[in-house]
Amino acid sequence: MKKIDPGLDDIDRSFPGEFTPAQIARGKTLFYQRLSETGHRFYQGKIQILPKVPISGFNWFNVWYTPGVSRVSTAIRDDNTESFALSNRGNLVAVVSDSTRVLGDGDVTPAGGIGVMEGKAFLMKYLGGIDALPLCMDSRNGAGVNDPEIIIDFVRRIQHSFGAVNLEDISQPNCYRVLDALRETCLIPVWHDDAQGTASVLLAGLLNALELAGKKLPEVRIVYLGAGAANTTCCRLNIICGADPLKTVIFDKDGALTLNRTDFRDHPAFYQQWRLCRETNPEGIVKIEAAVKNADVLIAFSKPGPDTIDPRWIRIMAEKPIVFAGANPIPEIYPYAAREAGAYIVATGRGDFPNQLNNSIGFPGILKGALLVRARKITDSMAIAAAHSLAGYARRRGISVDNIVPNMTEPDLFAHEAADVGIQAILDGVAQTSMTRDEIFLKARVDIETARKAHELLIRHNIIPALPEAIIQEALEWAVGEIRKTGK
Amino acid sequence: MKKIDPGLDDIDRSFPGEFTPAQIARGKTLFYQRLSETGHRFYQGKIQILPKVPISGFNWFNVWYTPGVSRVSTAIRDDNTESFALSNRGNLVAVVSDSTRVLGDGDVTPAGGIGVMEGKAFLMKYLGGIDALPLCMDSRNGAGVNDPEIIIDFVRRIQHSFGAVNLEDISQPNCYRVLDALRETCLIPVWHDDAQGTASVLLAGLLNALELAGKKLPEVRIVYLGAGAANTTCCRLNIICGADPLKTVIFDKDGALTLNRTDFRDHPAFYQQWRLCRETNPEGIVKIEAAVKNADVLIAFSKPGPDTIDPRWIRIMAEKPIVFAGANPIPEIYPYAAREAGAYIVATGRGDFPNQLNNSIGFPGILKGALLVRARKITDSMAIAAAHSLAGYARRRGISVDNIVPNMTEPDLFAHEAADVGIQAILDGVAQTSMTRDEIFLKARVDIETARKAHELLIRHNIIPALPEAIIQEALEWAVGEIRKTGK
Repeated sequence: MKKIDPGLDDIDRSFPGEFTPAQIARGKTLFYQRLSETGHRFYQGKIQILPKVPISGFNWFNVWYTPGVSRVSTAIRDDNTESFALSNRGNLVAVVSDSTRVLGDGDVTPAGGIGVMEGKAFLMKYLGGIDALPLCMDSRNGAGVNDPEIIIDFVRRIQHSFGAVNLEDISQPNCYRVLDALRETCLIPVWHDDAQGTASVLLAGLLNALELAGKKLPEVRIVYLGAGAANTTCCRLNIICGADPLKTVIFDKDGALTLNRTDFRDHPAFYQQWRLCRETNPEGIVKIEAAVKNADVLIAFSKPGPDTIDPRWIRIMAEKPIVFAGANPIPEIYPYAAREAGAYIVATGRGDFPNQLNNSIGFPGILKGALLVRARKITDSMAIAAAHSLAGYARRRGISVDNIVPNMTEPDLFAHEAADVGIQAILDGVAQTSMTRDEIFLKARVDIETARKAHELLIRHNIIPALPEAIIQEALEWAVGEIRKTGK
Repeated sequence: MKKIDPGLDDIDRSFPGEFTPAQIARGKTLFYQRLSETGHRFYQGKIQILPKVPISGFNWFNVWYTPGVSRVSTAIRDDNTESFALSNRGNLVAVVSDSTRVLGDGDVTPAGGIGVMEGKAFLMKYLGGIDALPLCMDSRNGAGVNDPEIIIDFVRRIQHSFGAVNLEDISQPNCYRVLDALRETCLIPVWHDDAQGTASVLLAGLLNALELAGKKLPEVRIVYLGAGAANTTCCRLNIICGADPLKTVIFDKDGALTLNRTDFRDHPAFYQQWRLCRETNPEGIVKIEAAVKNADVLIAFSKPGPDTIDPRWIRIMAEKPIVFAGANPIPEIYPYAAREAGAYIVATGRGDFPNQLNNSIGFPGILKGALLVRARKITDSMAIAAAHSLAGYARRRGISVDNIVPNMTEPDLFAHEAADVGIQAILDGVAQTSMTRDEIFLKARVDIETARKAHELLIRHNIIPALPEAIIQEALEWAVGEIRKTGK
């Protein structure tokens, strides 16, 4: 067995030479999952609380706590907006989930979402310089049914402690009802990352993919696979940006979205889907094969693959087909298989393949921008501004078929995104402070760099110890063994 | 104007020489409050989120987040107790308040409690090595009334994300109903720091004060001023430890607790108070002057002073009177005034006077012990074990009338407390893991030392900058000016 590089940079070549691309792809998934479990067990979680004020002597407790803090309480009581100046609230996001649709695993019970929400909080700080608290809550009512009204009530009650709320992994149709109710009534921005976040990043990728393919958004035929929160919001934003609804066909597990979809027509919670039934697919196409024929773009946020997208569909698409396979943890088709079938550009949600269209290049910058200008809400134009920010960033440093969007390690990416989103908030009239683009950019950059520096310090001084290499090696050996056992 | 020492060690002598003790006492309160406001404004909060895992390369995002983390979700889904091993949950406390009784300031609106709850979270990490999240929530129902059922529902729904819940600053009688309901039904410990926490620390002080006075708990006459969560729980724990209910008289703002208190008799929420009406004060004393005459101990958790306790009451107490004045931010009587009236030992909740009976020497160790052994609840015996731990610690290093309890800077105080509480949990049959006292002690000590080391690193490397001395000096000058202006 090869010795693995602990930076995981060479992961593909750590697998035996005789493994097929399919075996390596599956092996990587197994490896990451195994290492995730053993790694989480080693560290017992991914985030911690640390002070952000000094204690230069015993009497400082009288300043930061009682009796001094009484003045902070009364100042906030007399003017609630002071809570943004006198506490961490202005940089604090609640990551709220009822864990009913976590990654591709569905309902994992309330506690089951903690690992994902901690991961989100980790990314918020590391990428966006934002503090975030993971709150996995039980949304079941007395009858044991997950009730959107319970989530709405929950968020309304805790909003006073936070600068923004990030809704995450809430099953549909509850997620629509929750977002719509909260966006209208909360005093702080409520962001549904699975919808607006995904749509924003996908739009960035689409803009650059079309640029490379020499095509224009209003002219292309787009097929969507999946009609959940991600794809319906993608479709909406794409149309706002110029995509032609008449050249759009959408499928979900029950077939094409057409005027015959009485399931959507008769259920108020699915009003977004029903609107798309009315506005898209004028020919009433019902078969996927008919829809993908000569289509330019296939956008899938449906069920985990790798066999959800049939390579034969790609073969009959128009010239230079663009395939976005967004399912997690396993894309609807593996990139190597999509390219074998003729795809010009393939993107997935995974960081271990090229063209990661993952929310993680979106939400840290978008939320940071919204927080810095104290936006009351996050408008669709702000999400679109983020898409243009990401696409423009990538174009400035050069794009290619395997590199259509920036990745989360590129310098100042999130500070630029925060600045572009913050400025759009000001233009949209939802900002509550006035800042220039430069001011937003510089503040975001300082916060992000400070977070990174703090993290590096904790590592360098062994407060965060290194993961023993034996644990990493074991995960590789286990994954290789699993592949050998099943042959797949 | 004198130049202030930024460590605040010499705060009394920073005031003008002509100031009376009363003026200095009031000046210190004003100074701490002013500095608290300007200091909070400088740092914008007291706690932050930082990672507790390393990122040794880009591909590690695939381990800590998607696709790897999917395995963590399904592992927890299949066995919820895995959430304690695979996330930060086992070391995570929710500090929940509806901000309806914050310090001495009463209802400060939901956001008004943030500063206090952040302070609590700060202390949890700095003193106990515990991560804590401040959650100030709105407990008002449709009629605008703070409703205990809403807090109960809220905590039940978020318990899946936490290892314990610390209830804080909830007005009475709601706090009783909330605690009783949650202690019975939650799967994790629910701690009401204003009740059990205060009672535990007070008991530690009382045990050592009586030792110094040469008196025995079952023999002393105790008068309580205030019949809220703190004093009713103090009284209950003291009686469990041997105090004689027949030598106990309790007062609140409406007079003595006697069988004539129909307000308590007729309101089920006040069942604790009604029980005390029946069990104490057999002579039916109604006047405070009659009660304090020849009393050995006066324990006040009532309304902020400094004139709530009349010095004349102390003059007629028994020999070597013990006076505990617990109101925040201003004790019911200033220590200098109590001592002038003949008090042998005076304690307050304030850190800037001797004998601080503050919860902060209790909850960090108590919660750490409960978390480490995964206690299902925190029993009264565990609170009493904490009191004995604190009292014993102080006796081992020597006690005096101005030094009856340890302060929060003493070495290994909280690790000892955690160990003593954890062992009591095991004896009480509420622990869900088996550890020896040494194991608990060592793990608590490592966690606390690591938190301190991390904090020092952040300060040393200027991630946490020093507060400009001009801000500290301004607070002093402002406080001196206020005293001069009013003459008081």
